[in-house]
Amino acid sequence: MRFTNQSIRQLIEKYREISHLNKISALLSWDLNVNLPQKATESRSAQIASLTGIITDRWLDTGFRTLLDVAIQQQEHFSPEERAAVRNLEHAGKYYYRIPKDLIVEFSKATTESFMAWQEAKQHDDFDSFRPHLEKVVRMNCLIADHLTYKDNRYDALLDLYEPNLTAAKCSPIFDALTGPLRDLIKTVQNSAHFRETPRYVGEPYHYPAKQQKQLAYFILRTMGYDLKAGRMDVSAHPFTIDMHRADVRITTRYNVHDLRESLMAAIHESGHALYEQGVSPVYDDTPLAGGVSLGIHESQSRFWENQVGRSPQFISFIAPVLRAFFPNELGDTKIDDLVKMINHVVPSVTRVEADEVTYNLHIALRYELENGLINEKIAVDDLPALWREKMKQYLGVEPKTDREGVLQDVHWSYGSFGYFPTYTLGNLYAAQFTKKMREALPVDELISRGELGTILSWLRDNIHKHGSLYWPDKLVQHVTGESLNPAYLIEYLQKKYTELYEVDVKK
Amino acid sequence: MRFTNQSIRQLIEKYREISHLNKISALLSWDLNVNLPQKATESRSAQIASLTGIITDRWLDTGFRTLLDVAIQQQEHFSPEERAAVRNLEHAGKYYYRIPKDLIVEFSKATTESFMAWQEAKQHDDFDSFRPHLEKVVRMNCLIADHLTYKDNRYDALLDLYEPNLTAAKCSPIFDALTGPLRDLIKTVQNSAHFRETPRYVGEPYHYPAKQQKQLAYFILRTMGYDLKAGRMDVSAHPFTIDMHRADVRITTRYNVHDLRESLMAAIHESGHALYEQGVSPVYDDTPLAGGVSLGIHESQSRFWENQVGRSPQFISFIAPVLRAFFPNELGDTKIDDLVKMINHVVPSVTRVEADEVTYNLHIALRYELENGLINEKIAVDDLPALWREKMKQYLGVEPKTDREGVLQDVHWSYGSFGYFPTYTLGNLYAAQFTKKMREALPVDELISRGELGTILSWLRDNIHKHGSLYWPDKLVQHVTGESLNPAYLIEYLQKKYTELYEVDVKK
Repeated sequence: MRFTNQSIRQLIEKYREISHLNKISALLSWDLNVNLPQKATESRSAQIASLTGIITDRWLDTGFRTLLDVAIQQQEHFSPEERAAVRNLEHAGKYYYRIPKDLIVEFSKATTESFMAWQEAKQHDDFDSFRPHLEKVVRMNCLIADHLTYKDNRYDALLDLYEPNLTAAKCSPIFDALTGPLRDLIKTVQNSAHFRETPRYVGEPYHYPAKQQKQLAYFILRTMGYDLKAGRMDVSAHPFTIDMHRADVRITTRYNVHDLRESLMAAIHESGHALYEQGVSPVYDDTPLAGGVSLGIHESQSRFWENQVGRSPQFISFIAPVLRAFFPNELGDTKIDDLVKMINHVVPSVTRVEADEVTYNLHIALRYELENGLINEKIAVDDLPALWREKMKQYLGVEPKTDREGVLQDVHWSYGSFGYFPTYTLGNLYAAQFTKKMREALPVDELISRGELGTILSWLRDNIHKHGSLYWPDKLVQHVTGESLNPAYLIEYLQKKYTELYEVDVKK
Repeated sequence: MRFTNQSIRQLIEKYREISHLNKISALLSWDLNVNLPQKATESRSAQIASLTGIITDRWLDTGFRTLLDVAIQQQEHFSPEERAAVRNLEHAGKYYYRIPKDLIVEFSKATTESFMAWQEAKQHDDFDSFRPHLEKVVRMNCLIADHLTYKDNRYDALLDLYEPNLTAAKCSPIFDALTGPLRDLIKTVQNSAHFRETPRYVGEPYHYPAKQQKQLAYFILRTMGYDLKAGRMDVSAHPFTIDMHRADVRITTRYNVHDLRESLMAAIHESGHALYEQGVSPVYDDTPLAGGVSLGIHESQSRFWENQVGRSPQFISFIAPVLRAFFPNELGDTKIDDLVKMINHVVPSVTRVEADEVTYNLHIALRYELENGLINEKIAVDDLPALWREKMKQYLGVEPKTDREGVLQDVHWSYGSFGYFPTYTLGNLYAAQFTKKMREALPVDELISRGELGTILSWLRDNIHKHGSLYWPDKLVQHVTGESLNPAYLIEYLQKKYTELYEVDVKK
């Protein structure tokens, strides 16, 4: 235990119970997504609500709050780790201290209802039935943002919940810097002689048995260094990573028998998240410094492994023999170049979760602009479907035929999350910037070619993972790369990779 | 909601949170047994301890206790259901109100350590390393019993925790009535020309693939009427049933590829437990009347399905075609009589969990006598291994070669449970008595032969399941069968069944 100050030790001792309850809550969610019998949704919701109430009460407990207030006042005498712990508690505590408990409870109910309405609405492609729920959830988010307070932009109060210190003033220039070059790159790729609308080895005639996909996923997990004695892999509708402790970090996947890429990329992506959690220093267990620091940094780890490693020609060449051996009928005769093209297939589409590296961030730019407008009451929920179609055409040159493929496609807004989407793009940017730095220290391509991923993992552990939530994102990026976030690295990486792959010149 | 009195409504509203927390605790245990990664035992223990602390605090909360005290005073004005709810709360509350919280916490820690010591000791057949732990756990149980208070026998205070109102004065005559006839029946069977030491179709040369065993288990669950939309089946080291709500009742099983009987009987037995929980009236959800009333009645349901149904020649004849179809190499040519003999193979052995219907209750009689002696300080832990061997010889004519096969075989004592074992025998007795009554109302054998188990389930639902914890065991047995518990029914059933099966006359 590195916390020596008496009052902070007491505070952290009290926090330990909150941490246990948070992790129990995580288990309830994991189980809900992986195991829950169909008829048990209502009883599970009631159990989660009871636990949420207890966690809220623990934050509001006067003894705890007094200790936190004392620690805030005394923090100048603390060690850097102690100060970081206080900072994280103050940041997380904002949610409980600034927002009235009634609003938290009402919001939790409203978003549960909204989520269920969204499921129905998406299924029946019926935005109108979802609209009143979305309107309510947006209104409540505005109210929550006002309670949380902000300087320049109401949306900042929400962004900060997912990525400490993130503001629209930081996001907007990033998206401005990205959209032009990405749109140009897409056009370049589309004009290439090698451009195809649909990838090879994917779709109905091809059949990749789930059993082999599972074996392949485990091979990937082991190769990446995911500790299966401190985690497990299950199946869920949408892949995710969740931890009940550093020693219990679980991932999920899903199998599409017609498209091998889904489970392959899910395994690599989710393991990327899991490796981060498994790699945090054990001395931080159940303290405010435990776990990954923010959604953006978390996404940088999943995207690093998914894109910089998993989609690299070097990695694909390393696993090519395994793919051919597992799926002899489908891929037995493929050349490495065929596999690289399948896995790096670029095509503008209407669906975010199916998007490739080049088009992905334009999906996020669209959502960012709409969220910013909604929370600042410059866009009405009523106008969303049309605006969505318009911006899709503008950014990606495609138009969703239905709202199901358009404004209804993502779950996030339905459960009340505004400010989450930008962290996906931040993740991509951080990943590119970290990689650039890593390449100065390690022969990355060579290591990947030989499947020696342990050296890469060690670099991530030393530079990022072990710190847990010690450094906030701004400082961590500075600490690791010596400069602040710079979108140029992602643009440079994508331009180089995809002009080579599609054998074209960059349009500047 | 059938609770109309104002103060009891408030009490039950407050209890609802305790119920949610208990069910969350159940999920933590289920997950621990089914999913937990190897390295996460310590973190899971800490989470369970935090939750246990919160549940204890909820019971000790003055607001809750005052409401309960008021309800106890006012109960003469209550409806029968309201009175039963108060009675159950008073019964469960005893544990929290009479035992000092420090002792509860210390006991929880001591039993966790003792459990781990037992696992090691069993693995290395080393009773001496376990002895100090067992001595401590016995001492603490004595202390707990003294805090709980009792009239005649200290052991009664513990028996009552598992089976309300059960006493040694009730148990002893039951075991006295059972042991003689059962020992005679064993001798009769052993003298039969049809007696074999080892059953056919079991052991090394036979191989029952786990995949088919699993399919068979699901067929059995569906046939019995277990609602898989309100439950699920997983694999664990020892089969068990646990519920997170009436709509989420889960069972586990295990597959022994050399002995089909293990998973077959586990599926039937655990489903028997699960059907009870799934069948409780929904108006009792999350109230003190929810769930099965006692371990003994619970075991009556699992044993009814396992023994009275599952091991009956009628049921075996019903599933015989399925067995032959699933396992053509092993059972393709078997006659029904062969299968009946395999599933009802009687032989005295040293291991309780492998015991057949005839020998099973003698294993319990032995444990009952030892527990009664230990808690009343008439037997010392030091003397257990020798006493165990002596009594095994006396009751079953076999002697364990090692302590691992003897005094170390069961987990119960290691985690501090004294008073649990007798409920296994009670379950067998209740089951036989209920069956006798059921046969007056239904053509049981015919229904089983045709696999029409729904009618049987309906009878159980109407007479037992729907009542949940409304009637305590004594009253329930009276209510269902018109008389109090009578061991004659089990003896009669076993004598008739096994003298027919082994083609011998009863030795009176």
